Amino acid sequence: MKHTLLIRCKDQKGLIHQISGVFYRHKANVTENAEFVDHLNEKFFMRTEIEGDLNRIEVENELKKILPVQSTFTFRKHSKRRILILATREHHCLGDLLQRNHFNELDGKIVGVLSQYSDLKDLVSRFDIPFECIAVNQLSREQHEEELVSRIDALAPDLIILAKYMRVFTPKFVKKYGAKTINIHHSFLPAFVGKEPYAQAFERGVKIIGATAHFVSEELDQGPIITQDVIPVNHTMDSKDLARAGRDIEKNVLARAVQLALEDRIIVDGVRTVIFS
Amino acid sequence: MKHTLLIRCKDQKGLIHQISGVFYRHKANVTENAEFVDHLNEKFFMRTEIEGDLNRIEVENELKKILPVQSTFTFRKHSKRRILILATREHHCLGDLLQRNHFNELDGKIVGVLSQYSDLKDLVSRFDIPFECIAVNQLSREQHEEELVSRIDALAPDLIILAKYMRVFTPKFVKKYGAKTINIHHSFLPAFVGKEPYAQAFERGVKIIGATAHFVSEELDQGPIITQDVIPVNHTMDSKDLARAGRDIEKNVLARAVQLALEDRIIVDGVRTVIFS
Amino acid sequence: MKHTLLIRCKDQKGLIHQISGVFYRHKANVTENAEFVDHLNEKFFMRTEIEGDLNRIEVENELKKILPVQSTFTFRKHSKRRILILATREHHCLGDLLQRNHFNELDGKIVGVLSQYSDLKDLVSRFDIPFECIAVNQLSREQHEEELVSRIDALAPDLIILAKYMRVFTPKFVKKYGAKTINIHHSFLPAFVGKEPYAQAFERGVKIIGATAHFVSEELDQGPIITQDVIPVNHTMDSKDLARAGRDIEKNVLARAVQLALEDRIIVDGVRTVIFS
Amino acid sequence: MKHTLLIRCKDQKGLIHQISGVFYRHKANVTENAEFVDHLNEKFFMRTEIEGDLNRIEVENELKKILPVQSTFTFRKHSKRRILILATREHHCLGDLLQRNHFNELDGKIVGVLSQYSDLKDLVSRFDIPFECIAVNQLSREQHEEELVSRIDALAPDLIILAKYMRVFTPKFVKKYGAKTINIHHSFLPAFVGKEPYAQAFERGVKIIGATAHFVSEELDQGPIITQDVIPVNHTMDSKDLARAGRDIEKNVLARAVQLALEDRIIVDGVRTVIFS
Repeated sequence: MKHTLLIRCKDQKGLIHQISGVFYRHKANVTENAEFVDHLNEKFFMRTEIEGDLNRIEVENELKKILPVQSTFTFRKHSKRRILILATREHHCLGDLLQRNHFNELDGKIVGVLSQYSDLKDLVSRFDIPFECIAVNQLSREQHEEELVSRIDALAPDLIILAKYMRVFTPKFVKKYGAKTINIHHSFLPAFVGKEPYAQAFERGVKIIGATAHFVSEELDQGPIITQDVIPVNHTMDSKDLARAGRDIEKNVLARAVQLALEDRIIVDGVRTVIFS
Repeated sequence: MKHTLLIRCKDQKGLIHQISGVFYRHKANVTENAEFVDHLNEKFFMRTEIEGDLNRIEVENELKKILPVQSTFTFRKHSKRRILILATREHHCLGDLLQRNHFNELDGKIVGVLSQYSDLKDLVSRFDIPFECIAVNQLSREQHEEELVSRIDALAPDLIILAKYMRVFTPKFVKKYGAKTINIHHSFLPAFVGKEPYAQAFERGVKIIGATAHFVSEELDQGPIITQDVIPVNHTMDSKDLARAGRDIEKNVLARAVQLALEDRIIVDGVRTVIFS
Repeated sequence: MKHTLLIRCKDQKGLIHQISGVFYRHKANVTENAEFVDHLNEKFFMRTEIEGDLNRIEVENELKKILPVQSTFTFRKHSKRRILILATREHHCLGDLLQRNHFNELDGKIVGVLSQYSDLKDLVSRFDIPFECIAVNQLSREQHEEELVSRIDALAPDLIILAKYMRVFTPKFVKKYGAKTINIHHSFLPAFVGKEPYAQAFERGVKIIGATAHFVSEELDQGPIITQDVIPVNHTMDSKDLARAGRDIEKNVLARAVQLALEDRIIVDGVRTVIFS
Repeated sequence: MKHTLLIRCKDQKGLIHQISGVFYRHKANVTENAEFVDHLNEKFFMRTEIEGDLNRIEVENELKKILPVQSTFTFRKHSKRRILILATREHHCLGDLLQRNHFNELDGKIVGVLSQYSDLKDLVSRFDIPFECIAVNQLSREQHEEELVSRIDALAPDLIILAKYMRVFTPKFVKKYGAKTINIHHSFLPAFVGKEPYAQAFERGVKIIGATAHFVSEELDQGPIITQDVIPVNHTMDSKDLARAGRDIEKNVLARAVQLALEDRIIVDGVRTVIFS
């Protein structure tokens, strides 16, 4: 059985030796291991994949004895995570994820798609995934979000993907789900925060555009960045052309971030991320 | 003899036919030709390289008859332009340009280097290029700039390169020289405008950094962008590492922008550029 | 009505002037124009988009009078082209094209999918596109190809896309369809020609992998290249990881090539292509 | 004092725990640590940076007790390595390294430059580095190499850089120096092995070109790859343009490989490299 351990703690001498000792004593096999020490802030980060028949409680107790106070760690047995997608009207990121899911390429399974519109229902249905439209109608932001939350909770996702979900969340929502919600922003953040980044990019006359996948935080488009990518553009492209070119980047940037999250390869550290890829 | 024509004007039917007719009648050879029509704003841009024995006044007069009112064009016989470099303390962009100049790779020649410090004098001298230190001392910004301006005017440059010149200019300076002054900014603009972009990039936790060469305009780091490039970075890199990685990009981005300017391949259009590369 | 003109001919003075004159006299509007002169071989290439009510025969006759002997040109009124896809067992390129087609993003329409296996039938059916399995069984290469050809001819495609179609064609097939058949090769050609390029890339220990879309020619993987792209890889990735990373590149490289072909932006010149993008 | 340990050995359970134990017992501080397990071939690779007052003999003896038989490891106290550059006539890679060296940016120092021509003597002298021309004249390949070898041995370099040194070595030379000799090849290997890669790239009509830094092995351009990078190119560029564009890539690719070697971040494994960057 495969397990993954993610640790974030204060740096101190001998951590690698002591942590690896736990699994050595359990005769488990460390199949992948990576550490990172942030010397500036004296922080230690580690990701370990372990193959073996391990008792979670035992391992966690041993780790607690070894690690400095105020350590954060997760130790998980491998399983397919539940993925929920929120979308609006754009199909490209959603369709790409549906297809990957359909062919079992994600280390998880899509359990549903929610949207404030019904435009994408047809696409989602083609892949036999439940789709629900939670219309905004006369609902206030808070009311709409409440409905959304009740559906999310019913679906109990491990990971929420905003595949071009074009609504801003309340701080309450972010507090509850932000740490497991990945958004794709259609610009190379922190450039072009907010609305219509391609129109902004066109106005500014940039020669490269990009996309950014990040965890959701209270401040708009300010969450911890997971993956980014870019493509060259030129003066012949208007904002519609930029959007078209950008879509191909968005899909891949989001899919890579999702896979990193599903494989427990990300440790969030404030607004920054440590990625063990 | 090689000539280059750059045109920016209102779009109208038959422009290509009529402009190319001028050179056809002169029996000159169009060796390179490129146009771009901005349909949104109904603007026409054109760059033509012509080989032949042409009378500048005649050609210009014929063009004036053909082009719509309020057209802008330049028609230049090929010659090596005079390049002036302003630097501060960082050597990498300066050294790279000095070396390209030394081996005659630029379509121009460096006529001097000015700096507010003397740190780079030794490097510049090794390539037999005049170096002058215009120290700030107790001078006000305006006084220092005045000294600078008098030296610039004496050197009569066609192109001014800010090879990591870390001072902000007055609007007066920008008005006079901005259109022929290229700056290298060590970020992927418009991300991280202003001071210490690598420290900003580190703080934000971006996964890609970049560099931007642009013409100088009144608002800091807001001038028309000429070239940009990026490289992937990761969580193991602190702001010093980012700076080190970024330097290699800065050099190339600046050199490419300089070469585009020297070859008359850039037409500025507001805050945007049309690049005929 | 939109028309596109593609010209390849011997270079001579005044071509741009004379060609643009044709449309000027017809009072048609040149909305996009681009030329390229290959000085080494004295060849002239041009692509023009014209808006207007034009009589094809008239325009072609006028062009013939102007152009040098042995010129090649096509002048086409805009219409949605018929696209036929050939696939084998890999779904990613096919699915990506099906999705773009479903949302009307291609300048053409997919009229069918052929494969020697039935694995992808389910995916294709989900998008309501006809799928036919032409099994190899005991057929010889020639016999199988004959069946394929008869189906292709029945579907009368303007463009054939090999979306990971893993069979080699006979010279007869290539002669008939090569010029309108685009293949995606999963390597950065000319590196790793032939079978299992990702396994080859792993063996060689390269630090970057790529994908190449090209027209099909008699010699395997030697046809004119249309688009290429790459991504960095590292020692932790085995050939399966390389394949997974490569798939995202393949999709986009192929889609871009297909779009260039549909928009008449490619002129083939021997083994090279002139791309007016 | 900073030390670096590089290990390559058969994989077995508990290696990380046991190796890190050595430094834990010595009360030394592991400041950077990275491992990689090649599961396919059951090989274990590790790089560790240790800060502390360590006795090399003691550490090596303890490691020998722990590691499986047929392990390879190097344990080195940090020091500036001696770099020797071989060049021919192209200045860009050489000049770039000279400048980095001049400003103390390399984790080593250039002790001399050798060439079969005297073209670059002037450039090298400007940076106060010894230059020697070892002319080929009527010497046979073996005789010339013998002279070269005697000069190399006199300079006792830790690292030899072929900064566009356009001569092929004998197997004898490769056997002696290959493992510490880095070459920059001006193509994206394995594409365009051998002579004039830019001319080959032009002929083939590729849309991306690149450069590759690799260790030197007996078979030409087949040595273990360290770093690669690429840039997009297009049909307007002839082989001279490709060469010009490629030079900027070559400089950076070579400099990065050199820095990786100087920082002991490369473990060669057959024709492949494990890079701990």
